[in-house]
Formats: sequence, structure tokens, C-alpha cells
Amino acid sequence: MGFVLAVCHNPPVRRQPLPERVPASRVESALRALDRALGTSKIVSDEEGLREFGGDESENDPVLPDVVVRAESEDDVATVLRLAAEHEVPVTPRGAGSGKSGGAIPVRGGIVLATLGMAQIHEIDRDEQLAVVGPGVVLGHLHESVEAEGLFYPPDANSLSWCALGGNIAENAGGPRAFKYGVTRNYVLGLEAVLVGGEKISVGRRTKKGVTGYDLTALLVGSEGTLAVTTRATLALIPKPEHVVTLLALFDDVHAAGVGTRRVVSSGIVPRCIEILDDATLAAVRARGVSIDPRGRAMLIIEVDGSESECERGMERIGAECDAAGAITVLVAQDEAQRDRLWEARRALSPTTRAMAKFKVSEDVVVPRGRIPDLLADIDRIRADLGIGLLSYGHAGDGNLHVNFLWNDPSELPKVEIGLERLFKSVVAMRGTLTGEHGVGLSKQAFLPLEQSSTVIELQRNLKSVFDPKGLLNPDKIFPRPGAALGSHGAC
Amino acid sequence: MGFVLAVCHNPPVRRQPLPERVPASRVESALRALDRALGTSKIVSDEEGLREFGGDESENDPVLPDVVVRAESEDDVATVLRLAAEHEVPVTPRGAGSGKSGGAIPVRGGIVLATLGMAQIHEIDRDEQLAVVGPGVVLGHLHESVEAEGLFYPPDANSLSWCALGGNIAENAGGPRAFKYGVTRNYVLGLEAVLVGGEKISVGRRTKKGVTGYDLTALLVGSEGTLAVTTRATLALIPKPEHVVTLLALFDDVHAAGVGTRRVVSSGIVPRCIEILDDATLAAVRARGVSIDPRGRAMLIIEVDGSESECERGMERIGAECDAAGAITVLVAQDEAQRDRLWEARRALSPTTRAMAKFKVSEDVVVPRGRIPDLLADIDRIRADLGIGLLSYGHAGDGNLHVNFLWNDPSELPKVEIGLERLFKSVVAMRGTLTGEHGVGLSKQAFLPLEQSSTVIELQRNLKSVFDPKGLLNPDKIFPRPGAALGSHGAC
Repeated sequence: MGFVLAVCHNPPVRRQPLPERVPASRVESALRALDRALGTSKIVSDEEGLREFGGDESENDPVLPDVVVRAESEDDVATVLRLAAEHEVPVTPRGAGSGKSGGAIPVRGGIVLATLGMAQIHEIDRDEQLAVVGPGVVLGHLHESVEAEGLFYPPDANSLSWCALGGNIAENAGGPRAFKYGVTRNYVLGLEAVLVGGEKISVGRRTKKGVTGYDLTALLVGSEGTLAVTTRATLALIPKPEHVVTLLALFDDVHAAGVGTRRVVSSGIVPRCIEILDDATLAAVRARGVSIDPRGRAMLIIEVDGSESECERGMERIGAECDAAGAITVLVAQDEAQRDRLWEARRALSPTTRAMAKFKVSEDVVVPRGRIPDLLADIDRIRADLGIGLLSYGHAGDGNLHVNFLWNDPSELPKVEIGLERLFKSVVAMRGTLTGEHGVGLSKQAFLPLEQSSTVIELQRNLKSVFDPKGLLNPDKIFPRPGAALGSHGAC
Repeated sequence: MGFVLAVCHNPPVRRQPLPERVPASRVESALRALDRALGTSKIVSDEEGLREFGGDESENDPVLPDVVVRAESEDDVATVLRLAAEHEVPVTPRGAGSGKSGGAIPVRGGIVLATLGMAQIHEIDRDEQLAVVGPGVVLGHLHESVEAEGLFYPPDANSLSWCALGGNIAENAGGPRAFKYGVTRNYVLGLEAVLVGGEKISVGRRTKKGVTGYDLTALLVGSEGTLAVTTRATLALIPKPEHVVTLLALFDDVHAAGVGTRRVVSSGIVPRCIEILDDATLAAVRARGVSIDPRGRAMLIIEVDGSESECERGMERIGAECDAAGAITVLVAQDEAQRDRLWEARRALSPTTRAMAKFKVSEDVVVPRGRIPDLLADIDRIRADLGIGLLSYGHAGDGNLHVNFLWNDPSELPKVEIGLERLFKSVVAMRGTLTGEHGVGLSKQAFLPLEQSSTVIELQRNLKSVFDPKGLLNPDKIFPRPGAALGSHGAC
């Protein structure tokens, strides 16, 4: 028990030395206690089985846990967190494993607490416009279920077909529709969760408003599984928009697309999303056989929802603003099938770009939206200076750009690391933030001090200690690890 | 130095024995240090001057501070919080004093840190749709300033003509428009604040999205001035709605108004507010000489905003839903002047009801909106059983009701306290929350355990200790005080 995967599917970008694994003796005693308390059917401890639970969708190397518990109930979660505390064994909570910052990687080994089996939609209340869900409910399944009732859950992370709400809540997931509707935090009214030690807590509320005490719900959302493990969430819903219109505008360059974004945002129309694709991304889409006007070097995908008349009015106004920004063409998706194809291509960007090179790192930086053309210019300079593959797309309305580093030879890694550091420094200089959706996790912890002061980091460490004094819940995430010099990396 | 006001303008509803005042010797040394550091012009220490800073808009008795510092800058705030820590003197931050739960009352004496002088709007950025403000900016002034730029700051606390954003942030203020647009927390992107000890922190961001680290911004918003003192806030803005339409629907009783609320909410139209006034409230409005159809025993005020066509469509649909719920009449405000008169009457409810009796306590409970008729029925029973004056109005769409207890003779106080306890127990049994807008402060701390478990309360106390280990910042608020039995009260 207790071994690190030998496979190195990705080079160790920004990888810091892994912390020490939990001693085998503690794991053995915890495992015996888990067996007694839960029975063997919920426990995975064979290497083949454990392999499924060691990694996520980030560039970080997987780490094998010592044991996985597939929780089926709040009581299972409480049992695991009680025994973990008793035996001082680290616990890494895990939803679907779709995370992009290494949050679900059990860096010290120990227990992975898998909540994907808690996949029940407990309730959809049409009158109160809310849903109560388990952490294992898949986002897309929630979408379908509430839309069948005429309701709408706006957050739409790209991985919606398989990501789970527990992870969405832990990472405060966003998605294209965040421009109009906000992110996961805006929809989590209340949480039931379990603390290290096994105590159950209920925070937040079932009502739309409420200011009783500190907002522990908002603190837990986006805490990357380091403070408590969600067992049930009460989510606010809104009425399902009646109509949606999707526009696609092509531009000569990203600067014109940036002007288009600014004009649309300032028009008074609030589209539900404004997505941008840069030249390199368009090339990747074209390479998949999608026909795009060859003059186009940047694209905006803009979507408006609401009543039919609102959509029509919005579409006209947005088309005019794109024209005024010098769009080469503005197309409107003619029907739902065309719309779906467009979004399929957009959602496929992550796997498409992954297939373009042996190695990939995807960032999700945010800058004030007016600075996107400046950021893209900086990215051009990084590409030119370092000679590495870089393509960018993302949520232009929110200033949230997915910057993808692509390379084929492990020897290029030091260049990538220099590029990453330049990118983050550029973002912070523009008064932006390191991560808009993915979280810090393992991937960006060394860079946190670029954005946050030591006082603010220390404050967060101390808050973590209130919830988890022994540092057992998803340890060694978010905050810089001792000896983690900026840009330092190990060898695979 | 150090005396309790002899005046008792209100009976001590739910008042717990005040904690001990800070010893005079510590105050003296702090005052000397403050004088040296800030000069005397920013310091108030004469009794007449101090009287302005002892109370708020709640039913709680004022308490005189020992000294008031009128801060003019972040540095002033840092100096006060540094010297307060050095001399171990409690500090109570204060905006305009418009709070309704005693949050600004300096229960231990010591220093009141007044930030109303930090009233600068530092920036309004039209492209990024944000404003950067000092804590002393008056909400209504921000409204006017951003609306002049075609932008909109939705939170609209009733006291908007004089309440300050620092207090709005501390209490997570709401208002009628919260139904569509959410509350203060939804608009605070980032904060600059100062910790006890004088360290400055910057939390959150300037961008629309961001998930770097724990959401300390969301934790500070609504923390009732107990964790840090805001010195600057970055607020998200949205485009100003082009049109607004206001409807007024009269019903036979609150049950029909409740059905109307449910029908409107389920219609798919999202009004910006749905306000309810019960029979007793209508009587109070009529008593002010406002003419209202005498058959009406409950009223809804519903407002839709957006494009002209949206407003028209919304108005028609909402009118139809109110008719279907059995409305006696549905009127539409014909112009802005009529709209303004209506809202003036609505906003005047608080002072109007205050003038109706010698004593008043205003609660702001929240229940799932479908339970409002049940809650009003419970309130009828409390009124009948106890023979006390009770009237209710508020934000029906959010399930957020202002329940006003009115009485003239101090001997009625025990009945009021029984009524309050029955109200809160009824709200919690309906899966509601004690406070939707006002905060817990002093007014509801004894009732907190009705809603929150001891584990959750303890967790919050421990979080408070991380920010403020010596308990100097706005001490003895929110959490039950030792010896604070439910419903206990002192004598004036």
C-alpha cells in the first residue's frame, strides 16, 4: 500500500516536490476501521481500482491513494471523516475528477472520499424555484431535470456532460453563461456538509435571502474541498428563458474582436455569453474540418436569451455593434441543430487542443475585459520570444481567457514554465486574477503570492486551521508549500 | 468618560445585560495615543458629541462610546485599529447608523470608528461596469452617480437616502429590487479593509470572475463589522434598465395576495420586485391620507424593468396573473411622478409605523415565499392571543417580511417578547431564517440557536477569533452572550 504511479503522462509543469505520504501504519489501522464501519463493498484498495482515483483533468501527475471509499450517504461521509481524524490519515474528496487544477489529487496518499455515488436529485420545488441535490449529481443531468420543469440552472461548466455538482461547488465553477447569470456561488443557497472529525453541519438556507451569521456557504463554495465535504446542496433556480439566439462574428484580428466585445457590453443589451476564439484556436477548429471564412482571424460567439422580441432586438443590436467594430461577417444560427453544432465545436476545444500536441497546460486567467486585446498581445510576445505553441479562447465578456500551452518535447518544459510565469505576471499587472474557474489546487499554488499578500494568505491558512486543525482534509492545496519557489519544478 | 445614557427611548426588548465596559485606564491611554497620532480634529470625546454615536435605528438602547474617531482615510482606520489593539480597547465601526439590529452600538464603550467621512466615489468605470467607493458614500448618491453614466447599482435598502455603503456591506443590505437582482454581496467584487492591529488587506478582485483562494470578500460582506473594517469597495454595476413599470394590485386578503405572488413568480416573468402590504399596514397608509379602495385588505406592488416591449409584456402578464388570483383592482402607475409617490409611501412605512405607537420593534424574517400566507396567519394568531399591535409588509417575492410589533405601555413588553419568540419559532419551523436584511447584531443574538446548531455557532466564533483573537472589533454581537437565555430581558 502506498505507491506513486510510475506513469508520467505529462511533464511535471510547476510541480513541486510531493509532500511525504502518510505512514503505512496509520493507513493500515484506518483501513481496518473503515472495513469494520462500512463493510468492504464501498471500499476500493486494489491497485487497479485505485488507479481510477489518482488524477484529474489537470496537467499534474496522478498520485495513487491508499484507499478509496465510495460514499453512498451522509453517514458514510461522516464515518470516513471521523475515522480519518481518529487515525490521522489525510482525506481527499472527489467528485467526477473533472477538475483542472489538481484539487482531487491525493498528494499524501491516504483516503480518497468519492461522492459520485450520492447522485440523487432529492427535490425540485417549482414554486420556490430551487433544487436539493447530492454532490454526485452530474451537472448536465440537473440541467435536463430542471428544464423539464420549466426552470433553469445557469452555471454551465464545459464538462457539463460528466462533471458533478460537488466538484462544481468545491471549485465555484463558471461557464459561458456566467456573463449574464453569474457562477455557482450565486446559486448555492445552503449546504449540508461534514467536517473533519465527522460532525455534520447545515449552513445557509432554503430561502432566497438570509443574513443570519457569517456566510459560511459562500466560504465553503470555492474552498476546493479543503474545509468540509458537501453532502447535500440547495440550489436556486430561475425560470427557463423562452428563447435563445446565437450569433457568430468573425474579425480580422483579436483587437477588433475586443472592440466588438466592449461595444456589445456597453450597448445595454446583456447577452448571456460572449465567447472569444483567437487565430490559433480558429486554426485548430478548421483543422477539424469545420469550414470558417479564411479571412477570419478571431471569432466572437454571442448568445442572447429571453422573450422572442428581446432576442430579436438583442440580435439586431449586437449585429450592429459587431459591424461597427469591423466584423467581416456576422452569422446567426438558424435553428437549434446549428446552435448545438456550434457549441459542440466550442466544447470540443479542450479535447481538440489536447490532441494537438503531446503536452498541454490550460490556464484560465482573468483580466478586466477591456484588457483582453492587451493580454492577447502579451501572449503573442510570449509565443514569439519562447517559440512555444499557445492558443487562447474563453469568456471574453468576463475577461476570462483559457490560455493553452502546447508542446511536444519534454525538453521544452523550462520554456513553458517561463511562459507561465510571464503570463501570470502580465495578468496581475493588468489587475486581473490567476484563475477564473479552475481554482488554485496544485497547479497555481506557487504563483499565489503574485496575487495575494502574505497577510491574506496567512489569514486563509488560519481559517483552514479552524475547520481542520490537523491539516487532514485535502492537504497541501491552494497555499504555497514550504520550499515551493516560484516556477520551481521537479523532474519526471 | 464612560457612562451609559440615562435616557430609555425604548424598552429593552430582548435586551441582555450589557457586557462590562472597558476599564477607564485603558481608554485614557488609548485616547492619548490617538490624540498624538491623529491630532484632535478627528477625535470626539465630549458627551454632547458622543451622543450622536451611541445608537442606531434598532430598538436597542444607545450606549455612549468613550471616544469617536472620524476617520478620513485608510491610514486613519489603520491607526485606530493598531492603537486599539495595543491598548486593548474595543472598537465599533460605524457608517451612517441606519442599522436595525444594534450592530453599531458600542456595547463595551471604547472607540467608535466612524467612516462616514470617507465618502469619495473614487472611480466609475463604464467599460468595466464597476465603481470603486469609500465606505462613507451614501447609497442614494451612488445610485444617482452611476445612473448618470447609464449604469445601475441594484441594491436599494429602504434608507437609501442616508445609509452608507460601508454599513450596507457590513450588513449585506437588500431592498425591494433584490428579487430580481440579488443583494449587496452579489455586487461586491473586492474589498480593501483593515484588520484589528492595523494591517491592511486587499481581498477579492476587480474582474467579474475569480476563484483565487477562499472567498474572503463574501465572508466579510454581512459579517456585521466584526471581522475587519472596510476602507474601499469595488462594486459591480449593470446597465441601467431602460424602462420601469409599476403595478399595484389590491386583494380581499393576504391569502389571495400570496396566490398572486406565487402565480407571478411561476409565470416566467421576473419582476424586479414584489412587495406585499397587509391589512394593518394598509390601514396605516390610509391613516396618512392616502386613498386606497376600502375593499382592499392586502396589496402587492410589483415592478418590471427592461425594454419597453418587455415591460409591456410583463405588465400584461402580471396583471392577468393577479386577476386570476382574484385581485379586486390592478392599477398601473401612469408616470414617474405617480411611481415616485407610490414608493415614497412604501419607504415611509418604517417612520409611519414608528409614529403609530410609543414603542416599535421591526423584524425582517424570511420564509419560503409560498409560506407567506401561513406566516401571516400565525401572526394573526399571535396578535389575537397576546392582544398586541402587529403589522407586516415586505418583500413577498423573496419571502422576506417586516413584522412590526407596536405598543404603547412598557408593561406590555413581556407580551411582545413572547410574541417575538413565537414569531421566530414559527419562521424556523417553516424552514425560514431569522433575518433577511437587518443582521443579527444585538437584537437577535439570543435567538440564533433557534436556527443554527451549536457546532455552526462555535465554528463562526472560531473564525472571528482568527481575525480578532482578543475580541476587540465590534465585540459581543451576533453570537449569544454567556447567560443570554432565550427571551431574557433586563429592566430599564
